[in-house]
Amino acid sequence: MKNISIKEIAKLSGVSTATVSRVINNNGRFSEETRQKVLRVMEETGYQMNYSAKTLRMNKSFSIGILVPDITNYFFANVVEKIETILFDQGYSTIICNTGRNVEKEAAYLSMLEGKMIDGLIIISGADEFEFQVQNDKKTIPYICIDREPKEKNKTVFVSSNHYQGAFEAAEHLLQQGVKHPIIVMHQRNSSSAKERLDGFKDALKKNNYSFNPDKHRLDFNLDSSHDKKSLQEFLQQQNDVDGLFAINDDIALNILDYLREFEVAVPAQMKVIGFDNVPAGQHSAPRLTSINQDTQKIAEMATSSLIKLIDGNKEIQGEISLVPVQLIRREST
Amino acid sequence: MKNISIKEIAKLSGVSTATVSRVINNNGRFSEETRQKVLRVMEETGYQMNYSAKTLRMNKSFSIGILVPDITNYFFANVVEKIETILFDQGYSTIICNTGRNVEKEAAYLSMLEGKMIDGLIIISGADEFEFQVQNDKKTIPYICIDREPKEKNKTVFVSSNHYQGAFEAAEHLLQQGVKHPIIVMHQRNSSSAKERLDGFKDALKKNNYSFNPDKHRLDFNLDSSHDKKSLQEFLQQQNDVDGLFAINDDIALNILDYLREFEVAVPAQMKVIGFDNVPAGQHSAPRLTSINQDTQKIAEMATSSLIKLIDGNKEIQGEISLVPVQLIRREST
Repeated sequence: MKNISIKEIAKLSGVSTATVSRVINNNGRFSEETRQKVLRVMEETGYQMNYSAKTLRMNKSFSIGILVPDITNYFFANVVEKIETILFDQGYSTIICNTGRNVEKEAAYLSMLEGKMIDGLIIISGADEFEFQVQNDKKTIPYICIDREPKEKNKTVFVSSNHYQGAFEAAEHLLQQGVKHPIIVMHQRNSSSAKERLDGFKDALKKNNYSFNPDKHRLDFNLDSSHDKKSLQEFLQQQNDVDGLFAINDDIALNILDYLREFEVAVPAQMKVIGFDNVPAGQHSAPRLTSINQDTQKIAEMATSSLIKLIDGNKEIQGEISLVPVQLIRREST
Repeated sequence: MKNISIKEIAKLSGVSTATVSRVINNNGRFSEETRQKVLRVMEETGYQMNYSAKTLRMNKSFSIGILVPDITNYFFANVVEKIETILFDQGYSTIICNTGRNVEKEAAYLSMLEGKMIDGLIIISGADEFEFQVQNDKKTIPYICIDREPKEKNKTVFVSSNHYQGAFEAAEHLLQQGVKHPIIVMHQRNSSSAKERLDGFKDALKKNNYSFNPDKHRLDFNLDSSHDKKSLQEFLQQQNDVDGLFAINDDIALNILDYLREFEVAVPAQMKVIGFDNVPAGQHSAPRLTSINQDTQKIAEMATSSLIKLIDGNKEIQGEISLVPVQLIRREST
């Protein structure tokens, strides 16, 4: 099949090259009849757009990049999958990049995505505030942040679950179930969602007349199984009246259920446990895990609609912060 | 920051534009001293490569596409994450595309990836054989298939877990544990891995003098929870001596553990259950799930090294089929 030019398409369709270009880019005025005619000729001749060349000319690629720290994480994978579905229906391809929580890799993928002429960018989570260091200031790429605060808040939209609310409700749920000494189990990763969850937990304690003391109410895991088991055991020996535990995520909560089973601590009789994320494994664990559900569909909808508005030049939404409500899912562990 | 040209970089570095181009593309001969000098000038001037323009000129983008049916699937996400890590270390960016098991979407992403000038492509799973319909025959993109048979086997490399072996061992394990009436629980998705697993199960039965009868030994789920629970219940009523169950994947196996708990069928005492994939949830379930582990690291290593060989023009490996061994992980459910 020979490579056919827009000029030839125009000739065969009986329209100008400018019209063919408008049809290809779905941009500007043309009749439905013209559109059908041009598309038919393109199909018959097997015309294929060279997206790169087109991109260079038209400055629009109909592709959107996503930076995600870890696609093996249930919450991240679900948000990405839902974003992709919505964007595809709107005519955009999604380029997913896995940064492995690595700052250098993130920079490399940002540069790659700029080179691929993406129309917009979605940043999911990660350490620190996000700042888009555009090297070439002739062009700025609209972006929105999910679960990660942007440095230039007035240029973008920030979408996040209400992590504070979720943690607050988790702590209050423990107290309502009769827990007298609740603790939070954190990991050492730096993220805005982790900070919010810690704040929600602390404020729930405060509201219920506990004064939060890190030595008494907080345990940090380092996500190494044997180390974490030992540190939980030591913590529970030192603070031997702990009877309720909020884990910063379900992966940690599920490991804790295993450790407690080994320590012969009965859940929920002696210890109530609640997680965050509502991963499917929590529905099969023994006991089944109480958790906080994040509304990934809503997050995906808000993120995509905001990004498309920014791409379309709507600057009014810049600076918006959308907090998506979360939901307590009660199961056997509390 | 103004947009600087290669010509200016060359002038400032005191070398020819051809040398700058060689340094940028890490291609051809130049001294380390020259390289450092050019890179320093590029850094100082804030030169940014226009990857698309570069791609058009050099015909190499250092990016590789991956088509994956569903990134929320544990096995797929893990293989992709490991491939990305290996490729990044070798200087390639990975563009992950989620096809949602949708044929049209797959075609759209293939076309997008072609437009983005990827150097190579990895296809993971999916229905039917994979055929790369290159519209523009001036260029062919090397690709390899994981868990999906390529149509033109002699042009590519096929990498897969040994699903047949895994299913064979799973069935034999059930029989060795005293199971007299084993069944396989399938889903209705069409995939080469599902076919291999069914064949392995059948052959293990045959070796042990069972004649496989679909009515007696096979149940099909349609992945709708209430329907599946009912069909399992009816099957077990009709075939009331079933005492061992091999689920085609762990997600199905974990649901079955829940259903059996509801039916008050004791696992493993009355029913032994084994899954496939070794998902983390199986380590937390009640009882913990016996499963077949796929070596995602090995699969990722074989896939990437084969693809890079194909990109580098090594045609000798075309037609290779790599079957990666799997491993039985025994836990409480058998």
